[in-house]
Amino acid sequence: MESKQYSTPDASTLGRSQYETGTEQRSRLLLIENDPDDARRAREAFETVATETEIEVATDGAAALEFLRERVEESERIPDLVLLALDLPEVDGFEFLENVRDDADLVQLPVLVLSDSSASSDVHESYERAANAYLSKPSDPDEFETVASAIDRFWLRRVSLPPHGF
Amino acid sequence: MESKQYSTPDASTLGRSQYETGTEQRSRLLLIENDPDDARRAREAFETVATETEIEVATDGAAALEFLRERVEESERIPDLVLLALDLPEVDGFEFLENVRDDADLVQLPVLVLSDSSASSDVHESYERAANAYLSKPSDPDEFETVASAIDRFWLRRVSLPPHGF
Repeated sequence: MESKQYSTPDASTLGRSQYETGTEQRSRLLLIENDPDDARRAREAFETVATETEIEVATDGAAALEFLRERVEESERIPDLVLLALDLPEVDGFEFLENVRDDADLVQLPVLVLSDSSASSDVHESYERAANAYLSKPSDPDEFETVASAIDRFWLRRVSLPPHGF
Repeated sequence: MESKQYSTPDASTLGRSQYETGTEQRSRLLLIENDPDDARRAREAFETVATETEIEVATDGAAALEFLRERVEESERIPDLVLLALDLPEVDGFEFLENVRDDADLVQLPVLVLSDSSASSDVHESYERAANAYLSKPSDPDEFETVASAIDRFWLRRVSLPPHGF
């Protein structure tokens, strides 16, 4: 698995990735996470449990939206699954969800919230904004692998993800 | 785990269930399935893998909507998770999704499509109508337990489900 990391200043480079180089069968995951430790933990966890998955990292919601819209404009494949933190600079997780669900080209994109918060109000608002699922970050950093494994087993091995090219 | 089965003619009985009898900690699953063999297989699979789960069965979309709306009206707890077939009499799976997502009291309800179909158009339309995930029924009836286990591990053990009482 390869990984790349993007933030707003680097957004012009988005889309120039390994996606074009004949790895069509791999799952593609976009991790939107501003906390570098959590981003590293999540990336390493997926590298361990989901070896056929490519992961991209965006550090704010604006960069993530720009990345996704550029891929749509260029008729390139968008990620199969998004993991979204809520507390993000520029465009926060709720605004990201609103933008995605209001965009006919992105409305189907599965977005799993992965948040520090376990507040009922955040869970409520995430589902109201059509997050596909809400997960709390594990309090023990070692448990990121358990979360990554649960996501891999359900979403990447069992679910029929939205088809590309519709 | 206990189970009950409802179809439209019995809708007046909906809501008179074990839900009121002090089993607050159990997960509650509503299975909407018209095929009696598949309903039995799914129910038995959950009985085996998710012993702390209560399951209700509705055999068409209209009965399921009536059940859910009656529970909302009576301020009773709605199910935690819905498993939805697409090919249903009265109100089909797509119409069910549309009704749920247009209803402020039900918009957050996690709905997993569990369908015979693996057609891209059905997967596409399900996500477009804000299904939380799309799963194909296993071709081998013995594999229902694998599907039930994947759903249990992710949705009932890992995910923060929408809070009740909002």
